[in-house]
Amino acid sequence: MSVSAVGAQERARELGLSAAIGGTPGALDAITDVAGVEVGHTTLIAGDGKLVVGTGPVRTGVTVIHPRGRASADPVFGAWFTLNGNGEMTGTTWLQESGFLEGPIAITNTHSVGVVRDAILRWRVGKPGMQPWGLPVVAETWDGRLNDINGFHVTAAHTIAALDGARGGPVAEGNVGGGTGMVCHGFKGGIGTASRKLDTAAGGYTVGVLVQCNYGARRELRIAGVPVGEEIPDLLPGRPNGTDADDAGAGSIIVVVATDAPLLPHQLKRVATRVSLGVGRTGGRGENSSGDIFVAFSTANPNSAGDADVARVEMLPNARMNAIFGATVQATEEAILNALLAARTMTGADDVTVHALPHDRLMAAMRKYGRVR
Amino acid sequence: MSVSAVGAQERARELGLSAAIGGTPGALDAITDVAGVEVGHTTLIAGDGKLVVGTGPVRTGVTVIHPRGRASADPVFGAWFTLNGNGEMTGTTWLQESGFLEGPIAITNTHSVGVVRDAILRWRVGKPGMQPWGLPVVAETWDGRLNDINGFHVTAAHTIAALDGARGGPVAEGNVGGGTGMVCHGFKGGIGTASRKLDTAAGGYTVGVLVQCNYGARRELRIAGVPVGEEIPDLLPGRPNGTDADDAGAGSIIVVVATDAPLLPHQLKRVATRVSLGVGRTGGRGENSSGDIFVAFSTANPNSAGDADVARVEMLPNARMNAIFGATVQATEEAILNALLAARTMTGADDVTVHALPHDRLMAAMRKYGRVR
Amino acid sequence: MSVSAVGAQERARELGLSAAIGGTPGALDAITDVAGVEVGHTTLIAGDGKLVVGTGPVRTGVTVIHPRGRASADPVFGAWFTLNGNGEMTGTTWLQESGFLEGPIAITNTHSVGVVRDAILRWRVGKPGMQPWGLPVVAETWDGRLNDINGFHVTAAHTIAALDGARGGPVAEGNVGGGTGMVCHGFKGGIGTASRKLDTAAGGYTVGVLVQCNYGARRELRIAGVPVGEEIPDLLPGRPNGTDADDAGAGSIIVVVATDAPLLPHQLKRVATRVSLGVGRTGGRGENSSGDIFVAFSTANPNSAGDADVARVEMLPNARMNAIFGATVQATEEAILNALLAARTMTGADDVTVHALPHDRLMAAMRKYGRVR
Amino acid sequence: MSVSAVGAQERARELGLSAAIGGTPGALDAITDVAGVEVGHTTLIAGDGKLVVGTGPVRTGVTVIHPRGRASADPVFGAWFTLNGNGEMTGTTWLQESGFLEGPIAITNTHSVGVVRDAILRWRVGKPGMQPWGLPVVAETWDGRLNDINGFHVTAAHTIAALDGARGGPVAEGNVGGGTGMVCHGFKGGIGTASRKLDTAAGGYTVGVLVQCNYGARRELRIAGVPVGEEIPDLLPGRPNGTDADDAGAGSIIVVVATDAPLLPHQLKRVATRVSLGVGRTGGRGENSSGDIFVAFSTANPNSAGDADVARVEMLPNARMNAIFGATVQATEEAILNALLAARTMTGADDVTVHALPHDRLMAAMRKYGRVR
Repeated sequence: MSVSAVGAQERARELGLSAAIGGTPGALDAITDVAGVEVGHTTLIAGDGKLVVGTGPVRTGVTVIHPRGRASADPVFGAWFTLNGNGEMTGTTWLQESGFLEGPIAITNTHSVGVVRDAILRWRVGKPGMQPWGLPVVAETWDGRLNDINGFHVTAAHTIAALDGARGGPVAEGNVGGGTGMVCHGFKGGIGTASRKLDTAAGGYTVGVLVQCNYGARRELRIAGVPVGEEIPDLLPGRPNGTDADDAGAGSIIVVVATDAPLLPHQLKRVATRVSLGVGRTGGRGENSSGDIFVAFSTANPNSAGDADVARVEMLPNARMNAIFGATVQATEEAILNALLAARTMTGADDVTVHALPHDRLMAAMRKYGRVR
Repeated sequence: MSVSAVGAQERARELGLSAAIGGTPGALDAITDVAGVEVGHTTLIAGDGKLVVGTGPVRTGVTVIHPRGRASADPVFGAWFTLNGNGEMTGTTWLQESGFLEGPIAITNTHSVGVVRDAILRWRVGKPGMQPWGLPVVAETWDGRLNDINGFHVTAAHTIAALDGARGGPVAEGNVGGGTGMVCHGFKGGIGTASRKLDTAAGGYTVGVLVQCNYGARRELRIAGVPVGEEIPDLLPGRPNGTDADDAGAGSIIVVVATDAPLLPHQLKRVATRVSLGVGRTGGRGENSSGDIFVAFSTANPNSAGDADVARVEMLPNARMNAIFGATVQATEEAILNALLAARTMTGADDVTVHALPHDRLMAAMRKYGRVR
Repeated sequence: MSVSAVGAQERARELGLSAAIGGTPGALDAITDVAGVEVGHTTLIAGDGKLVVGTGPVRTGVTVIHPRGRASADPVFGAWFTLNGNGEMTGTTWLQESGFLEGPIAITNTHSVGVVRDAILRWRVGKPGMQPWGLPVVAETWDGRLNDINGFHVTAAHTIAALDGARGGPVAEGNVGGGTGMVCHGFKGGIGTASRKLDTAAGGYTVGVLVQCNYGARRELRIAGVPVGEEIPDLLPGRPNGTDADDAGAGSIIVVVATDAPLLPHQLKRVATRVSLGVGRTGGRGENSSGDIFVAFSTANPNSAGDADVARVEMLPNARMNAIFGATVQATEEAILNALLAARTMTGADDVTVHALPHDRLMAAMRKYGRVR
Repeated sequence: MSVSAVGAQERARELGLSAAIGGTPGALDAITDVAGVEVGHTTLIAGDGKLVVGTGPVRTGVTVIHPRGRASADPVFGAWFTLNGNGEMTGTTWLQESGFLEGPIAITNTHSVGVVRDAILRWRVGKPGMQPWGLPVVAETWDGRLNDINGFHVTAAHTIAALDGARGGPVAEGNVGGGTGMVCHGFKGGIGTASRKLDTAAGGYTVGVLVQCNYGARRELRIAGVPVGEEIPDLLPGRPNGTDADDAGAGSIIVVVATDAPLLPHQLKRVATRVSLGVGRTGGRGENSSGDIFVAFSTANPNSAGDADVARVEMLPNARMNAIFGATVQATEEAILNALLAARTMTGADDVTVHALPHDRLMAAMRKYGRVR
């Protein structure tokens, strides 16, 4: 079983689409533009052909995000929101109660949430200086169309590898980590990321987004308002000897929002809620079979989670949050687009093929509707 | 003080924009396509020139919606959701607890919520057969840019007139009722409505939406994905001797969703949540100063609210809700557009003028971006 | 129509019952032990005999609480929680969204929420330095058993009198303000207050509670664990020529919790949630017809609500909140008891009489069950 | 490693304490009085002496509840509520969104939530007729005082054994299943159950409760209002050569409420919320370190979760829910008491001993405070 990375393709920014979406990306146009954030993937791709449960084919993995880097045991303020709850994100009850996100966020396939969750505890137990206890935050989307999901191929070791291998800098996108086997608007989906840098007047803060996208009906796909899904009705997922019907939005999307703006938990709840608007602009409806679950955290206010002393923390005025809201919507839309742009055509279990979004046809649609020249 | 109605203008459907938004409008393309729903407005327009608190100018009113008509005392199942809570909707605590919406919904200006609320109780007290008690649902948006809002011009009598005057059939839009003095994306806003009729395979249900729209920044306005706000950056609200800055989304939007689909309260909560997506597609961000509060109800399951016997009620399968969700998003987007299309340029307090969305320039933008021919 | 106060009777502390409930009361054993908090009542008692709607008898009023005193326009952090939502508290949507409670809290009868709400806006409009705008927090319980509630006797002037007349120091309890006509566990209820002072190791903070209690079945009444309701099954509310059945918990309870502990909004939500435990210990079940709505605020962190600069605020560690939770439960239980102890027998509309809790029989029950000597 | 059961001791009913708590227990005084409910435990007790992580001592397990029995794939309506969220219950996002609880509920230790969760999916995958997919509901409390929790001793096989071994009838209590290593109010805690049967006038419904209790400070323990914790201040958990301080409420409580009353999801939410009152009466404060998470389901309305046809379901009037609320509070209090009565003194890791609640001293306290003769 190989643990692979996927080389970068042209991203939204390079294609001139960030401008159509609005706002100014950060240096990396990634969640890692928020200082301290580290991302790690373990990607599992093995086998071909007919599905044999427990054997494969395997098209899955796990992605982790350390809000303050893998070496930090310092919690961040956080919050979460659900647009449609047909999914899992563990650890949210304490996140909401305490206002703190303690430890990493992990994203994997639906049937591996448990092993990844417990593995985070194993990892904590093994780290000097970390509390050997916790309520890990692990989310999922369902990759059973391409992956032997009932083979339970993700292990604790895979999780720990992603935790230990996480780094800042550019983030691999597309068919990587938890996103390896995902399908989005009928194209190959997976991991995507983007960021927005606010101007100085708005505080100069950064908002970074990472998505694991697996949601959406083809016909609903819109990019910067352009009905791309209507323009590319073909290339639907299918088997060699036939084409699947495009199911109306099966799947899910997990969105992680990071910012260095000094937001308190109740303000981060507001940010998480706005993720919906970015998903909606891209064609999400919060469909019944979709787990659209979002988590937001702020890396500001370090060392605020001690048990003893009254903490002194900073709070952005509510009146200044609009720029954060706008950046969240824009970065969400662009992160989904980046996932679609990076993911390559994949053939998985039972020889089902899910096609990549063709860059040329996307750009043709953008031109047709006047969004790029 | 006159109580006036405003004549209809061309609506989204006549302009060919329903198709760009998606879905099939009902016969009236109005919330009243849901059988039994009645809408009433009292519109207050009086005075001109300099603001004298308590005197005017007056540009306000109240709009009411009876889910089963003004003569019915039978509650409907209902639920609510907030995208951004800088606003008021009374009665929501019991709505959420009980699952029932008991009595009409009213929408007025921010400073008249109280008088309208108590007036609904006065009205109930005076109606034989109605419970002389209640927790009325009254929402608001702020019309202080055009209206002498601190003059408290809405009275109990105005409210009762709207309650008694409500009818099915076509709904007056634009500068009427609670929407009289509202501003939306820097254009004249107010009341708008639209509906979607599901096809037979989806159950043939109707989803109707009514909005009182007062939200949004000009530059964010999008219609069917077209950046209309960027195309029409002028015609901002202003005084004769100067032009106001376009504030970034000040204001609010109240959205009422009606359906005849047999949805239980927890399912109606899902519907109310999806309203966000329609607001987001039109350019809303849930801005900090915006009260974006949505209520949804179902006229199915009459006579289910008795105190004695176990009720037998119908429930649409969750798996069939996607069509409802899509219709909600589409009808919300179109209802906002209809408000903008119906509202006429208005000059109010201190001679501030808010301009109507020019139909010709809107259509030019739609053509430029390939959305209509 | 007279605006009267009611003289103090022996309170729980003087009767030795604070010790049975637990914790240490503050100097006043009142919400006003939290520095800055001011309370005002307008009490309306007029007429006797047969109910004539619009005429009387009148047994109602309004109570207001200014978190930082009537002269302050500085918001406090706040949050709210509902145990059972058959009631109204306006302004909660913005409270939850923003984390700030802006302005006073008012409590009145169910049918006067609107007039009181709008009156708070009138009052703000008339105060130099206050924002002439707002989303007032007004709650209610139903006093229609003793009061001509459909006569709508509370006016804007009554509200403004309570707002302007509010003071720190001892708080009148029982048949005063919004609590004038209330019934609690079948005894005369109304306004009650209590406080707890934490020891130095716990931070020395004060938690103050004010209730307007109108809830509960007689048989469920428990005080410090003693089944007082079972011990005093008589003295039920009734008419001269007959005795009403004891309805099972009709009514409601509004609880306001104030503290000077530096709690952020999400922490105050936790505090508001714990109020349930105090109500539950006293025999509340969150009955279906009860509006059990609680609001909590912190007077710490003044001047944190500006629109421009990043605020620096203090936050008590979550790990130190248990003492606050315990104090909230204790002060809630004692405030309800103080309401029952202070309220005097009242005869109202249609000559219905609601009896005061007899102090001697209460103490006899406490002795019987070993709770006092 | 042995998988053992624990013989029954005298329960609250036999001791005459049900009457003090109130209401009428069902035939078994157990959650299995609700027809169809099955409970299974796997209990892991092995090793003694010094803690060696990965080796033991082991004092843990898993408890499962099948709402309609282990052979049924028919979901039940359900809802959940959190009093204090320092804990985990997976699957709640979909529970809240859909209104359905699909499959069993499992309760284990904090660090085994993942393995149990994934094991439920493995079990489903292996069952003909069950959907090979899911979002299992798994909750936990922390048993690290007696158990080698970081040894991760619970396996998929243990979980599947509990799932397959579940039965109706009497339920083993105390040191069994997920409750094996738990501590409650400083006494040995664990699994407890109780039920209440409503009288015919209230519908004759049954409310059953099962708790895994691990919460609470000794001094706060109250039973039927009697301050039992103050009466038995000794017998605190401790090591052979010393006594631990009584930590103020560390731990958690998971409560499962079952009923055959026809309640819709939003009504079950109301029921879950009332569990707090039962916990509060017993001395819970929703302490910061406590995961107080409650789930409620109704076995009425079978075959309502199909994807195709409009379902016809029954709904109890809200006005008739008070009896359900009262029964929930009573059965929660009694289930906690039954856990304390059934659990036997246990010595675990590092020779820490947690003492059983001594029945004789409990009854002496009940007599002293006049609660039994």
